[in-house]
Amino acid sequence: MLTTAQIDRVVSAALAEDAPWGDLTGQVFLPADATATAQLRARQDGVLSGLDVFTAAFRLTDPATRVRARATDGDRFAAGAELAVVSGPARAVVQAERIALNLLQRMSGIATLTRRFVDAVEGTGARITDTRKTTPGLRALERHAVRCGGGVNHRFSLSDAVMAKDNHLAVLQQQGLDVTESIRGARRQLGHTTRLEVEVDALEQIEPVIAGGVDIIMLDNFSLEDLARGVEMVAGRALVEASGTITLDTVGEIARTGVDVISSGALTHSAPVLDLGLDVAVTAGR
Amino acid sequence: MLTTAQIDRVVSAALAEDAPWGDLTGQVFLPADATATAQLRARQDGVLSGLDVFTAAFRLTDPATRVRARATDGDRFAAGAELAVVSGPARAVVQAERIALNLLQRMSGIATLTRRFVDAVEGTGARITDTRKTTPGLRALERHAVRCGGGVNHRFSLSDAVMAKDNHLAVLQQQGLDVTESIRGARRQLGHTTRLEVEVDALEQIEPVIAGGVDIIMLDNFSLEDLARGVEMVAGRALVEASGTITLDTVGEIARTGVDVISSGALTHSAPVLDLGLDVAVTAGR
Amino acid sequence: MLTTAQIDRVVSAALAEDAPWGDLTGQVFLPADATATAQLRARQDGVLSGLDVFTAAFRLTDPATRVRARATDGDRFAAGAELAVVSGPARAVVQAERIALNLLQRMSGIATLTRRFVDAVEGTGARITDTRKTTPGLRALERHAVRCGGGVNHRFSLSDAVMAKDNHLAVLQQQGLDVTESIRGARRQLGHTTRLEVEVDALEQIEPVIAGGVDIIMLDNFSLEDLARGVEMVAGRALVEASGTITLDTVGEIARTGVDVISSGALTHSAPVLDLGLDVAVTAGR
Amino acid sequence: MLTTAQIDRVVSAALAEDAPWGDLTGQVFLPADATATAQLRARQDGVLSGLDVFTAAFRLTDPATRVRARATDGDRFAAGAELAVVSGPARAVVQAERIALNLLQRMSGIATLTRRFVDAVEGTGARITDTRKTTPGLRALERHAVRCGGGVNHRFSLSDAVMAKDNHLAVLQQQGLDVTESIRGARRQLGHTTRLEVEVDALEQIEPVIAGGVDIIMLDNFSLEDLARGVEMVAGRALVEASGTITLDTVGEIARTGVDVISSGALTHSAPVLDLGLDVAVTAGR
Amino acid sequence: MLTTAQIDRVVSAALAEDAPWGDLTGQVFLPADATATAQLRARQDGVLSGLDVFTAAFRLTDPATRVRARATDGDRFAAGAELAVVSGPARAVVQAERIALNLLQRMSGIATLTRRFVDAVEGTGARITDTRKTTPGLRALERHAVRCGGGVNHRFSLSDAVMAKDNHLAVLQQQGLDVTESIRGARRQLGHTTRLEVEVDALEQIEPVIAGGVDIIMLDNFSLEDLARGVEMVAGRALVEASGTITLDTVGEIARTGVDVISSGALTHSAPVLDLGLDVAVTAGR
Amino acid sequence: MLTTAQIDRVVSAALAEDAPWGDLTGQVFLPADATATAQLRARQDGVLSGLDVFTAAFRLTDPATRVRARATDGDRFAAGAELAVVSGPARAVVQAERIALNLLQRMSGIATLTRRFVDAVEGTGARITDTRKTTPGLRALERHAVRCGGGVNHRFSLSDAVMAKDNHLAVLQQQGLDVTESIRGARRQLGHTTRLEVEVDALEQIEPVIAGGVDIIMLDNFSLEDLARGVEMVAGRALVEASGTITLDTVGEIARTGVDVISSGALTHSAPVLDLGLDVAVTAGR
Repeated sequence: MLTTAQIDRVVSAALAEDAPWGDLTGQVFLPADATATAQLRARQDGVLSGLDVFTAAFRLTDPATRVRARATDGDRFAAGAELAVVSGPARAVVQAERIALNLLQRMSGIATLTRRFVDAVEGTGARITDTRKTTPGLRALERHAVRCGGGVNHRFSLSDAVMAKDNHLAVLQQQGLDVTESIRGARRQLGHTTRLEVEVDALEQIEPVIAGGVDIIMLDNFSLEDLARGVEMVAGRALVEASGTITLDTVGEIARTGVDVISSGALTHSAPVLDLGLDVAVTAGR
Repeated sequence: MLTTAQIDRVVSAALAEDAPWGDLTGQVFLPADATATAQLRARQDGVLSGLDVFTAAFRLTDPATRVRARATDGDRFAAGAELAVVSGPARAVVQAERIALNLLQRMSGIATLTRRFVDAVEGTGARITDTRKTTPGLRALERHAVRCGGGVNHRFSLSDAVMAKDNHLAVLQQQGLDVTESIRGARRQLGHTTRLEVEVDALEQIEPVIAGGVDIIMLDNFSLEDLARGVEMVAGRALVEASGTITLDTVGEIARTGVDVISSGALTHSAPVLDLGLDVAVTAGR
Repeated sequence: MLTTAQIDRVVSAALAEDAPWGDLTGQVFLPADATATAQLRARQDGVLSGLDVFTAAFRLTDPATRVRARATDGDRFAAGAELAVVSGPARAVVQAERIALNLLQRMSGIATLTRRFVDAVEGTGARITDTRKTTPGLRALERHAVRCGGGVNHRFSLSDAVMAKDNHLAVLQQQGLDVTESIRGARRQLGHTTRLEVEVDALEQIEPVIAGGVDIIMLDNFSLEDLARGVEMVAGRALVEASGTITLDTVGEIARTGVDVISSGALTHSAPVLDLGLDVAVTAGR
Repeated sequence: MLTTAQIDRVVSAALAEDAPWGDLTGQVFLPADATATAQLRARQDGVLSGLDVFTAAFRLTDPATRVRARATDGDRFAAGAELAVVSGPARAVVQAERIALNLLQRMSGIATLTRRFVDAVEGTGARITDTRKTTPGLRALERHAVRCGGGVNHRFSLSDAVMAKDNHLAVLQQQGLDVTESIRGARRQLGHTTRLEVEVDALEQIEPVIAGGVDIIMLDNFSLEDLARGVEMVAGRALVEASGTITLDTVGEIARTGVDVISSGALTHSAPVLDLGLDVAVTAGR
Repeated sequence: MLTTAQIDRVVSAALAEDAPWGDLTGQVFLPADATATAQLRARQDGVLSGLDVFTAAFRLTDPATRVRARATDGDRFAAGAELAVVSGPARAVVQAERIALNLLQRMSGIATLTRRFVDAVEGTGARITDTRKTTPGLRALERHAVRCGGGVNHRFSLSDAVMAKDNHLAVLQQQGLDVTESIRGARRQLGHTTRLEVEVDALEQIEPVIAGGVDIIMLDNFSLEDLARGVEMVAGRALVEASGTITLDTVGEIARTGVDVISSGALTHSAPVLDLGLDVAVTAGR
Repeated sequence: MLTTAQIDRVVSAALAEDAPWGDLTGQVFLPADATATAQLRARQDGVLSGLDVFTAAFRLTDPATRVRARATDGDRFAAGAELAVVSGPARAVVQAERIALNLLQRMSGIATLTRRFVDAVEGTGARITDTRKTTPGLRALERHAVRCGGGVNHRFSLSDAVMAKDNHLAVLQQQGLDVTESIRGARRQLGHTTRLEVEVDALEQIEPVIAGGVDIIMLDNFSLEDLARGVEMVAGRALVEASGTITLDTVGEIARTGVDVISSGALTHSAPVLDLGLDVAVTAGR
């Protein structure tokens, strides 16, 4: 889990961005002493992610607010389900609403889409993973959402696994360096806790890469046929990751080619936000 | 324009997030003294937004890099167009690539979608505007992107225009307060530079709101028929904003109902990232 | 209201600035286990603003401190009034004292001066407003203080209303651009939630500006006579804001010229700090 | 001098506060390619302070701007003097103007007031010093301004000199502790680079304090007669600091009582901002 | 004491550095609902420093954790002593462990080494002090640790005492400036709360420095004989600080030469971390 | 490499910590217009690390300073070698000196110690690696220093490799969970780019851990005999890491037991700072 300190840092910045000088509407429309109770309800089916973040938005607006959870991160829910109840000063409840929902909808949208991909490959040995195509500033939250949806996380950053891609190979080639040798040289410099992955985009690139000694080989934008052929060529000497434009329609077939991992940037950069609503139910205090 | 200081703050944070301990792959694969030149190319038609942000990603990684622009924010381009050329130490060019592209693709995606909406309402008097449903931490950038696409910006935050929505009205109602009177009271407290908008979701709510004296009335999720009827009822006493689930298919018809402004959260929260690529073209220096 | 998160950010920075390595005096003079109770008392008449900020200074120094409020932001009080009681570890109470008082005195000074201006225009239709001449880093707090004194806030920043001033007009003129046309062009680009104001410094500038279509016209440094004449010329086609060197002696007469708003930078940049004292009343714990 | 890094941190934050989403007015009124040259001119006599800060405001808005200084921090100037020339993109020049002036006017106001105090005590041995009553977040800048005006700085924070004040003595007294002994105890715990000062408000408190061994004794709110008597009693055994409500009218007489230092919170918390103007002189580029 | 706000800022940053994307091990090995109780035990004799920092590491990871202290900063303890008991969710207890221990071990290591130096000079009049050779970012914590060990703090930064060292004197000399005169000039510019120290590295430099009027003279890298001779030459006209490569073996002899203060950078830059362990004792909750 | 942005963030904070209100000594001792040239010289043999950090300290103090490098990170040098030349305004050169040296000495100390460990195992297959026992806030710099000395980096944080240690196993045991099964379960949840390591402290724990399927097994505090026996038992089924109290005297023998990796917290937490000096050589400008 993320620490309280990290969640608070992200949410504080979001709140400040959304109300640098306070919420004018609450100030002029809502009585200062009114209190409100609001229900967080699902307006579509989905998977929950981000309840701690949602809660922090209210607490950091006004510590007098309270959020009671009715579900837990990772839970599946149906449209109409009550997910939490928020109560406290009406101005604070309404002021924090957009940030709280914005983050929760984004995270739950990612969790929900991930879950659909994961379900689509059920029964194959393949696992669903994300990429570095996350929202700047929100990677920790979005990666947590992928886990809530049953996915596993790819490397978190440029610092925690090696992954040679097209532009690396282009530089090597232009410098007249041999790929197999370069991989061997890279391995010698790497820490023992770090995995090494190389991306290829044609079947004939597989053997030189495998010969260099990699933990993972990524087959990028391969046809189903070539994916199957690639898995055969690798023959267990490395994990095989399929990448490219993966959709819910194709992911099952891709999984059945025998690849170990399927990575999709769409999980984070294109997941539709999940429709959740916060409706004021009861007010008092005037 | 955003200040250099603001752009640098966002981009620095994104770079740190993406490589807290440096780029392992560059360290073990690329010669320290290799230099590279890379082309930023469009892989689909679109509208450019974020070139200053793109440039900052390279400069803040290594001041020895250079970005030469071939286009300007707001320009339309076709698939295949060269948009910029990046050169410098190969490790820096490759390390900054993902952050630079990630932000540029996101911003250009928003600009491109906005442009399509704007084109779809051409000839009507309606204008296209965004909402507060932006990515936490990136609002200033995303709002700039909407402007690049020809849209206009809605209020930037809770602090710069008043907008009473369903939850505000729910509190007022539960507290037994009259809407017309509440609007008049709100107006009295507001600064003279601040506009006041109220959201309604049924025709019968229009008159009490207009009677209170608003600058803008938002008709939320109205049918085309009701929108036209609403415009008629308002009769120029306030600007009319249409909101709800607006799509490229419906936005033209909505505009022709006579509304002044059409706001769409999708411009920022659901714009597909635009496909741009950075390809290493030449290397040297070894 | 400002969020807890925002108040804490400002107050934390102020505390760190005032004691980067702790409070030496408390360390060497006060027993570690002594506790103290102190009274916050007014030493002159005034209007309260900043109690949440005052409280945060103690809490962020040591969560074992407690502040019990005897008044609320916006309240008027007389010299001698007890406004709050602070208790807790003596070292913490004394360490936080200066920051707590400094911010509270500044904010209450602004609220008190604003209240005097507001009282001076009572019965006229004019309202008192602030400007962007606030203390860097403290704008949100100082604007809150103006509200506590009965004033209304002008635009909060360059981002939330358009205001063309002398230097903008100087550029237009040098570029050979027409003012009326420029205002029309500006209006077309502006969002529907944004008001447009133009500053003029002579009667003959009024008509071209009004012809361009503005929400507000600012008459800068006009004589009383010219102000009255200006109001007549505008004839309700825009709100009229009077600006210039406004004092308590002149503000009433200015209001009676019929202007809608009177803005004064002095409210924030020249309000004398209000004299409030924190006196240790009881100690214990040794 | 402050480091570039520190100046940039304060100015960046101020710029962000003043234009979280950019400068709307420049965007809609000024041509994107217009350039401008503006003169910084004094509108009253004064002492300059803050030119590096002024310069940073333009550079951090747009590195294409240039500031050429015509004077240096600490210089005296007459009304009408040209102090600097700013040139660059018109939008950037106008956007940064308020922050640049705001900080420069505040700092030069402090320098100018300090200079008047310093001049008023010329020929006596007394020196003029500031207090901790500075603007939260701006202490480093305001203290620099005091030095520009010929003053000397008091302790910078709670961490760099010991100063026992009324509330410390109140705690000691209530705990039944002897002042002389407490001062001796404090001295034993203090580092050798730290000076120790105690504040007294009556003549009879002087001897016990001096007996404890202090570097400085502050006579708070003493009459002229009592100040002279106090200086006599201290008899060179410590530096004598006079404090209380010091004005330009009284500071000369106070200095002539023989005190070593006169401290005034008004230098920083009540210095009127100095009237400086930035006027666009030439534009081009369209 | 440091404020809660300052401690939290340092500890939050450390926690984020140590787990930018959460603790993978806890996530995959520990049941989410397991709780644990762990004992903080000394594995060697020492002096405690940093308990508030230790506690913050757990609280900022998860507010559901609790730390019960069994000792206080400054206490001596023997190997095997129980110093605190931590309890809460097992994942949080284990995640925060390294940061909590890292800071506590570092601070207690400094306190323990300082205590040994202080004990070694007992009975002489000399005091032990630290230097500016602290860990960047942790100076406030490390200086607190020196105090916990019975040492006194040297100046905290370049801003709170003047100390002319070899490079300053080298510049003066190259500029043809006289040392005695330079010291007199410096004194005239300095605030009354600031002490002035000059470093010398030969006996013949002492008299010119003392003649200038200094509060402290530092004898750098003097032999025992020269130290004694230096003390004699200074003859009480200034405090004498001995510096250079001070060890536990030599510090007693140095103290007996009659110097007032012995400063050692090793206290902070070379103190071995103290061996403390956190052992899980009881778990539950599954 | 670290980005410019990251280096600047660390160095800015260090400079602010070391001179919150500027450098008093430079202000009162050095002429404002004096310039200086200083040589960075080694006072002992070593390995260089941190030259970019050293350079940033001067640039961020005053951009008018220049640093010309005479060596590169990773270079070995002998006592007396000139490593760089710094020139610029004398006040800036002297003000930045301590921070520049402090970081460079710390980093070069780590690189130098690492190099000695690496040399001591030359010819064996063992590699030297660091741990998470780094200085809070400086991990990225210290890890870079280890690489400069020829070491490899262990996992950077809790987020980039799994490592089950004594406290994890203690929780599992108390919860009645089987180690082999727990490892298998952990593996299933882990991303494909993440390695899994388990720490054991007795020979009999090896088989159950290996049976679970780990990438690395850490033998903690094993005797030389047991290490050799452990390597034999593991038999190539995982990498073997030796840990415990490793010294320069023992590291060679440990390497010869056949372990793959030797990790030492001492590399970062106990490396003596390397003695480097910055001596003013020439001044001018007065």
